[in-house]
Amino acid sequence: MVNTVKPLSMLSKNLNKPVMVELKGNKGYRGTLDGFDPHMNIVLKNAEEMEGGEVKRKLDLAIVRGDNVIYISP
Amino acid sequence: MVNTVKPLSMLSKNLNKPVMVELKGNKGYRGTLDGFDPHMNIVLKNAEEMEGGEVKRKLDLAIVRGDNVIYISP
Amino acid sequence: MVNTVKPLSMLSKNLNKPVMVELKGNKGYRGTLDGFDPHMNIVLKNAEEMEGGEVKRKLDLAIVRGDNVIYISP
Amino acid sequence: MVNTVKPLSMLSKNLNKPVMVELKGNKGYRGTLDGFDPHMNIVLKNAEEMEGGEVKRKLDLAIVRGDNVIYISP
Amino acid sequence: MVNTVKPLSMLSKNLNKPVMVELKGNKGYRGTLDGFDPHMNIVLKNAEEMEGGEVKRKLDLAIVRGDNVIYISP
Amino acid sequence: MVNTVKPLSMLSKNLNKPVMVELKGNKGYRGTLDGFDPHMNIVLKNAEEMEGGEVKRKLDLAIVRGDNVIYISP
Amino acid sequence: MVNTVKPLSMLSKNLNKPVMVELKGNKGYRGTLDGFDPHMNIVLKNAEEMEGGEVKRKLDLAIVRGDNVIYISP
Repeated sequence: MVNTVKPLSMLSKNLNKPVMVELKGNKGYRGTLDGFDPHMNIVLKNAEEMEGGEVKRKLDLAIVRGDNVIYISP
Repeated sequence: MVNTVKPLSMLSKNLNKPVMVELKGNKGYRGTLDGFDPHMNIVLKNAEEMEGGEVKRKLDLAIVRGDNVIYISP
Repeated sequence: MVNTVKPLSMLSKNLNKPVMVELKGNKGYRGTLDGFDPHMNIVLKNAEEMEGGEVKRKLDLAIVRGDNVIYISP
Repeated sequence: MVNTVKPLSMLSKNLNKPVMVELKGNKGYRGTLDGFDPHMNIVLKNAEEMEGGEVKRKLDLAIVRGDNVIYISP
Repeated sequence: MVNTVKPLSMLSKNLNKPVMVELKGNKGYRGTLDGFDPHMNIVLKNAEEMEGGEVKRKLDLAIVRGDNVIYISP
Repeated sequence: MVNTVKPLSMLSKNLNKPVMVELKGNKGYRGTLDGFDPHMNIVLKNAEEMEGGEVKRKLDLAIVRGDNVIYISP
Repeated sequence: MVNTVKPLSMLSKNLNKPVMVELKGNKGYRGTLDGFDPHMNIVLKNAEEMEGGEVKRKLDLAIVRGDNVIYISP
């Protein structure tokens, strides 16, 4: 394979960095990527639930089940 | 991997502590995390079903099937 | 792991006891938990299908496929 | 485990007996349980598709894919 | 197990015979069962797509992905 | 088993031939079947996205994820 | 098998090239394919979220979970 980056390695590179997480059902979260596993279950620290550009809720920590994830963006 | 926390280990750290569980279909629960397994099936003790910020139902115990979970937050 | 209870063990403790089963699609059942397997397929005895707090249907026995389950509560 | 009945064994006990099968999407069937497998794929003989308490269609035989099943009731 | 018929064996008995295939999303097909596999992926020959009792489309051959199947009826 | 054709072998017979691919969510594609795998992930060449009998979009190549497929028809 | 191209090999040929990614729920993305794995989890670089032909959002990087993908087109 060419010089390429696997999705989970790319997540690994963003550990402890701020990410935006888009979930199914129009939910968006911003926070620090604190961990993940191969199912894309993720741990977010200092997360903010976003709705229409506004902060709807703050969560010190959230363990998100991977099957809800659309994408994760640093 | 960097200094990071796996999602299931993070659940483990919150055993016997209060958590908020957000489920698909706009259901929210507050309760004590009494157990879980790798599918994120969870056991909640003294759970309250929340709807629009109000307590809708009280459950001494609830065994929630993991595929309903959006996130779990301590 | 701390002093904790796995979801399936918790089901096991409630065998032959009355439970409430909440299914996807706004269906609720009350009955006696007569059996289950690791998929959370369950056997309910003397089950009542509930809708808006009223009994809609009575079933001597129901074998429920696990993927419909939201939670089971003793 | 206590004196309990596994879901698939319970299906086995109802082979060649009349059952009611509730499927996702508001479909109900009555017929004779002619066979099943661990996915809850089932074979129904002399099946009637029910809608609002009325017989909508008659099927000499139907092989139902298990993932559609909500519950099976003798 | 009693004198019973497994779902896939029952499909096997109907090879090269006319079947009705009901799919999720209100699609119905009539045709000759030309093949299948354990996922219930099926091959239909001389298939007719039915809608409200009328033939909507004719397909010389259709390879249907099993997860769409509700039931197959000879 | 009788003289029968497995779904994936049937796909194999249609490699490099024109096919119609019906996807969930009312999307239809016409194109040349350039490849597939056991999940029914498929490669379409010179594909046309159809909507209501009209060509909506042209794609030189499309790699379609198998879980979207309803049926593939030569 | 005839001279054919497997879906994942076709993705491999498009690494570091511009692709269009159509997701479930009417989301479209344009970007450079930076990586993928067998689940069709993909890494997109310099991605643009498209809606009705307009750029809605720009993402330097997006790790998309494979189960959202309808198709990927170079």
